[in-house]
Amino acid sequence: MDNFRYCTPTRYVFGRGAEMEAGTQLLANGMDSVLMVYGGGSAERSGLLARVREKLHEAGIRFEELGGIEPNPTDGPVRRGIEMMRRGGLHALLAVGGGSAIDTAKAIALGVPYEGDFWDFFAGRATPQKALPVGVVLTIPAAGSEGSGNCVITLEEGLHKISLRTDEVLRPRFALLNPELTMTLPPCQTAAGIADMMAHIMERYFTPTPDCEVTDRLAEGLLKAIIEEATKAMSRPDDYEARANIMWAGTLAHNGICGTGRREDWTSHAMEHEISAVYGVTHGAGLAVVFPAWMTFMAMRSPGKIAQFGRRVFDVNDPDDTSAALEGIGRLKAFYTSIGLPVSFAALGVEHPDIDLLVAKLHENKGEEIGGYLRLRADDTREIYTLADF
Amino acid sequence: MDNFRYCTPTRYVFGRGAEMEAGTQLLANGMDSVLMVYGGGSAERSGLLARVREKLHEAGIRFEELGGIEPNPTDGPVRRGIEMMRRGGLHALLAVGGGSAIDTAKAIALGVPYEGDFWDFFAGRATPQKALPVGVVLTIPAAGSEGSGNCVITLEEGLHKISLRTDEVLRPRFALLNPELTMTLPPCQTAAGIADMMAHIMERYFTPTPDCEVTDRLAEGLLKAIIEEATKAMSRPDDYEARANIMWAGTLAHNGICGTGRREDWTSHAMEHEISAVYGVTHGAGLAVVFPAWMTFMAMRSPGKIAQFGRRVFDVNDPDDTSAALEGIGRLKAFYTSIGLPVSFAALGVEHPDIDLLVAKLHENKGEEIGGYLRLRADDTREIYTLADF
Repeated sequence: MDNFRYCTPTRYVFGRGAEMEAGTQLLANGMDSVLMVYGGGSAERSGLLARVREKLHEAGIRFEELGGIEPNPTDGPVRRGIEMMRRGGLHALLAVGGGSAIDTAKAIALGVPYEGDFWDFFAGRATPQKALPVGVVLTIPAAGSEGSGNCVITLEEGLHKISLRTDEVLRPRFALLNPELTMTLPPCQTAAGIADMMAHIMERYFTPTPDCEVTDRLAEGLLKAIIEEATKAMSRPDDYEARANIMWAGTLAHNGICGTGRREDWTSHAMEHEISAVYGVTHGAGLAVVFPAWMTFMAMRSPGKIAQFGRRVFDVNDPDDTSAALEGIGRLKAFYTSIGLPVSFAALGVEHPDIDLLVAKLHENKGEEIGGYLRLRADDTREIYTLADF
Repeated sequence: MDNFRYCTPTRYVFGRGAEMEAGTQLLANGMDSVLMVYGGGSAERSGLLARVREKLHEAGIRFEELGGIEPNPTDGPVRRGIEMMRRGGLHALLAVGGGSAIDTAKAIALGVPYEGDFWDFFAGRATPQKALPVGVVLTIPAAGSEGSGNCVITLEEGLHKISLRTDEVLRPRFALLNPELTMTLPPCQTAAGIADMMAHIMERYFTPTPDCEVTDRLAEGLLKAIIEEATKAMSRPDDYEARANIMWAGTLAHNGICGTGRREDWTSHAMEHEISAVYGVTHGAGLAVVFPAWMTFMAMRSPGKIAQFGRRVFDVNDPDDTSAALEGIGRLKAFYTSIGLPVSFAALGVEHPDIDLLVAKLHENKGEEIGGYLRLRADDTREIYTLADF
């Protein structure tokens, strides 16, 4: 185990009706002038936004709204939000939605008190020191941003999708998690969210750090739970218990607990970010394509942890590491397929991926060598993208 | 899953040399006048206290010391500490040690700003609203108090050992966790700590709340990891990796993560508190005696979750719930025995336990009915104490 620091001060309110505490939680955290950031259609149609607005009015909170945030959120709305908050003298944010709304809110929270351009933080030209407080009403369990200090934004010019990680500055003050709000998600979005949260665990699980039995077991346990509950939620979308387990798993997958004491990997995420930046695919669906390809590459070179995954998560019973690893990958792909996820570029709707472009952008954004489990250069990542093409 | 609230703001610094941050962490938390609370001999002899004092001096922190805290800490030192802090105008606490030092510090932290007698909180006559900030340098992984909002103190008069639970008021501001400090623990203390942390998980695991797959899997994973690492640490006390895994598991066992979304039980703890209050035995050793007896009682009445424990934690392969449960209990007792723990009153050194007295005190302190998994009355708890006598 490596030395580590860990602090997760986010206050979680979990269960039926959690969103009704939006006003009281904002007030309890001294957040009385707010920019409310959200996606669009479904939260409005379902009446969720109306309920939240009512709670904000009841609490006497002054607020403005920034709606219409799209998946794979970009810098444009972030800049508009920063401008709105400065002009309106607003001092806090409330995101209502999934990762896109939350990450847009986080980027605005960083940008408002910063004199330069907010993209400086994403381009590595500045280090986050402070941010306005952010609260969350979660509607899509997937990104895990409600409990993380991370934030992913795409720069429209050049389609650079960059993930910014902070220890604490960007962790939300509170997150209201009502599993009922996730019952109306379309099946493809439920499935993509499941692939996303599984990837958040696996990026931490596939580590070069030895002797992480505690976090290994936590990760394996979460993965087993997600796989079991996902199957239930896909067949019965209104199964509250399945939705509740998946929602909480999505938060724990990314609040850092599975990464304590070890180096993490994050190659598959970086590789997927290029795919979704270029082809506009759903992040989770892209991960279902890239991650098994990455694992297959590793199974041929350093199968140990991939084999452990197969044995402990999918109960593979094979004494040989490489075959146990490959069998585990096969079962993972079968699981993804069973919930309607693609496991190849073609199934993702990308018939002829421009692998050279993806590799070039990946290393332009991330450097010549990437990854934790093994360090990878362009030849390696090209091989992984190619494996994902079949 | 039940609705829940969850917030763990404690900042963990984990790894070699973590105690060297005592001064900087106190300052970072605005804790510049401190009562340092500790046990005694070993922390002084090992040089730990000297290192911590030096760091406090370097940081310019004004501090006084309250040493000599004994296992199963009592109200006497708490009262002395309250008096010292009021007289000295001290505003924060630093506990150096295990659960006894930490819980004494927490009780003092509650008592100083309270006008009445601090025992009011333990007697249920007052509800904790505020406390002075507490920091921790952990030396014994067992109680989990470094990450919990709980505190256990024994009233010397009448030997009432009472556990006080708070959501956040008593959670330490920071905890410095250096696994190296645990290498010199005597084997019996290492083993008792392991039984204690396993019990903290199992009290949350054995729940009447259905459909808690995520927390079930987390709990089972932690238990498996502890069992594996315990065997290593017992045979090689200076195995850093085993010590590190056990230390982190001890914190996660009790910071509440395994209890999210469900009712907990805590009968075994309550029953053990009476044993250690009356006979002065080590809490963890007492738990190794009581918990299997409690599980045996349950295996005959409501075996479902006990059987799941056997199958998932100890890989029992038996389709019948009652036999799977009993086989799991057998393997748990074999594990306890393998690391030198007692599994009966006699092995605990209590040849003829006064079971009537234990039952009477238990229900006097906890009420006529106790427990979560099944509700238990005096006839039931008498049967469990009797099962523990063999």
